Amino acid sequence: MLVGSGILGKAGGILTRLGFDTRPIMVTNARVMRLHGHALLASLENAFGPIPVIRIGDGERFKSHATLAKIYEGLFRAGADRCSWIIALGGGVVGDTAGFAAATFMRGIPYVGVPTTLLAQVDSSVGGKVGINIERGKNLIGAFHQPRAVLSDTETLRTLPARELTSGLFEVVKCGAIRSEPLLGYLEKKLAAILDCESSAIAHVSREAVRIKAEVVAGDERDVHARMHLNFGHTVGHALEAATAYRRFKHGEAVAWGMIAAAEFACDVSGLRTDEARRLVRLIQRIEKLPSLRGIPAERVWRALQRDKKSSGGRIRMVLLPRLGSAEVCDGLDPARIRRFLANFLARGCPH
Amino acid sequence: MLVGSGILGKAGGILTRLGFDTRPIMVTNARVMRLHGHALLASLENAFGPIPVIRIGDGERFKSHATLAKIYEGLFRAGADRCSWIIALGGGVVGDTAGFAAATFMRGIPYVGVPTTLLAQVDSSVGGKVGINIERGKNLIGAFHQPRAVLSDTETLRTLPARELTSGLFEVVKCGAIRSEPLLGYLEKKLAAILDCESSAIAHVSREAVRIKAEVVAGDERDVHARMHLNFGHTVGHALEAATAYRRFKHGEAVAWGMIAAAEFACDVSGLRTDEARRLVRLIQRIEKLPSLRGIPAERVWRALQRDKKSSGGRIRMVLLPRLGSAEVCDGLDPARIRRFLANFLARGCPH
Repeated sequence: MLVGSGILGKAGGILTRLGFDTRPIMVTNARVMRLHGHALLASLENAFGPIPVIRIGDGERFKSHATLAKIYEGLFRAGADRCSWIIALGGGVVGDTAGFAAATFMRGIPYVGVPTTLLAQVDSSVGGKVGINIERGKNLIGAFHQPRAVLSDTETLRTLPARELTSGLFEVVKCGAIRSEPLLGYLEKKLAAILDCESSAIAHVSREAVRIKAEVVAGDERDVHARMHLNFGHTVGHALEAATAYRRFKHGEAVAWGMIAAAEFACDVSGLRTDEARRLVRLIQRIEKLPSLRGIPAERVWRALQRDKKSSGGRIRMVLLPRLGSAEVCDGLDPARIRRFLANFLARGCPH
Repeated sequence: MLVGSGILGKAGGILTRLGFDTRPIMVTNARVMRLHGHALLASLENAFGPIPVIRIGDGERFKSHATLAKIYEGLFRAGADRCSWIIALGGGVVGDTAGFAAATFMRGIPYVGVPTTLLAQVDSSVGGKVGINIERGKNLIGAFHQPRAVLSDTETLRTLPARELTSGLFEVVKCGAIRSEPLLGYLEKKLAAILDCESSAIAHVSREAVRIKAEVVAGDERDVHARMHLNFGHTVGHALEAATAYRRFKHGEAVAWGMIAAAEFACDVSGLRTDEARRLVRLIQRIEKLPSLRGIPAERVWRALQRDKKSSGGRIRMVLLPRLGSAEVCDGLDPARIRRFLANFLARGCPH
């Protein structure tokens, strides 16, 4: 993984030095192509010759089987074979979908990630999780397929819409909440600079988040033990996304609501102090005014939560915080209690 | 891998001893369910309680995305989560499709194969190749996902339709052709007994074929070096299947035609003696009168062959025999020559 400013324009040389010697096929979307595609293409074509480009839709709802089929078809049209490789330029949707296409095309071809959102840089680029959503829920179909390389150009973050940037910041908040109270402190202190996309501040939190993720994931490719801590905020977060058909919230926003819910729940269950919970909630609220929970039926969220892959053998599992900067997996939580909590949480809209 | 007579009825106990302690979800088709499902179910339910059954269509054309979606949906309806596992009872279509569903459901759950055809017992149960066909060709979408266990009950072979049995025998012929001239000799001598499903003869050739496959595959999970020898007969075979929309030939029959073509082609290219080629062709013809090649447009076969995943970087690659019992990978074969050969081969219908 390479992080830095202006990496897009050097990608061809970097990848050549990493041993790639055939042309890749690029997967991206129209918006990212317009903003950053030509810089990357110029560099790649200089190294590898003409690069076919597959454009997919923009937005979480395009992380679908239809998009996957479109990528396969694009690969065939481009004459791809098992010696081909994919370069995915874009956010998490592009990375996860193109990565899953790479995992399953002719039983697996390599891919390289060029994440252009903060979320994708800190989230999708570690761990090798790739996959698509289906109606039943998020990421229910997928694989583990490590990218051969990840090139993160911090300059691309400057072109992000505000909600994309803050959505990524919630992922950073999550990393702080489960592993590093000082990271939360840094976010609190430098929030204005970060929201202004000041390069050194963004680079610091981005690197910290990736470091924490990589540390958690190291030696633990599947979802067991420590790795589950990265699911903090995801149990309720995924359920909110599914219950709103992935249209109301960005992923990070749903996780932010999930962290608020988990923090409040943790005050009862895992002994998180009320003032600590309040501190986390305040930081989240300073980052962004989250889309409202209004009108989301509690029953629908509850059903989505039960279906979600976090539940194991029928029991409910959640990641909770005993204190800020430390996480624990709570298994076998009482379903009835969580159901009641959810109904209250949704009815109130926002706690604290 | 366990091979023997009457294993279906002992599956529950065997799998419990292997460490499985939650109920599986069974994937099969209606015909196999009628013939063998109840014996297996009784044993499994004795060990694990009620087992949900997902029925898929019977035939190569059901090795499709639609079937995959049906399996996913069946898994959700059965309440499957990432602790669930799949038991696949049936031939190659059931094994490959259910195996690919297992590889991609929630990023991978275990599966156990219970192959009920000779082809699946010798072919699908070694190597971990799972996948589906798409219009563009066979097995173009897939993964490597090793079954946790394979239980081969030789008794199930007695209920096979004639063409299913002979189709599997062609896979045995292939193993002999690339690695063991004595296996070809055994087939020639005991063919009547084998076609009569005499248990000891079937068990011998089945074990020999699995041994050869496992030996070839050992230490080489991806298609490089020796493993490619298992593709003998597949370059033309796959192209014939694709050109006839997977409807005219059983997989083994297409491979049989592919072996005949490769043997004839090898006389020119890799120095196989004409009498050896003729010996292989005769054995194939004694096993079954293959479905005719009549009316298959040479151009369509040629296009399918070019698209096939065996081609690497545009060159044509075929496995050829320098002599019976020994194989070599011939890379960079002249496309024009293969195209001419194919046109002649199809025009003649059957050589020698």
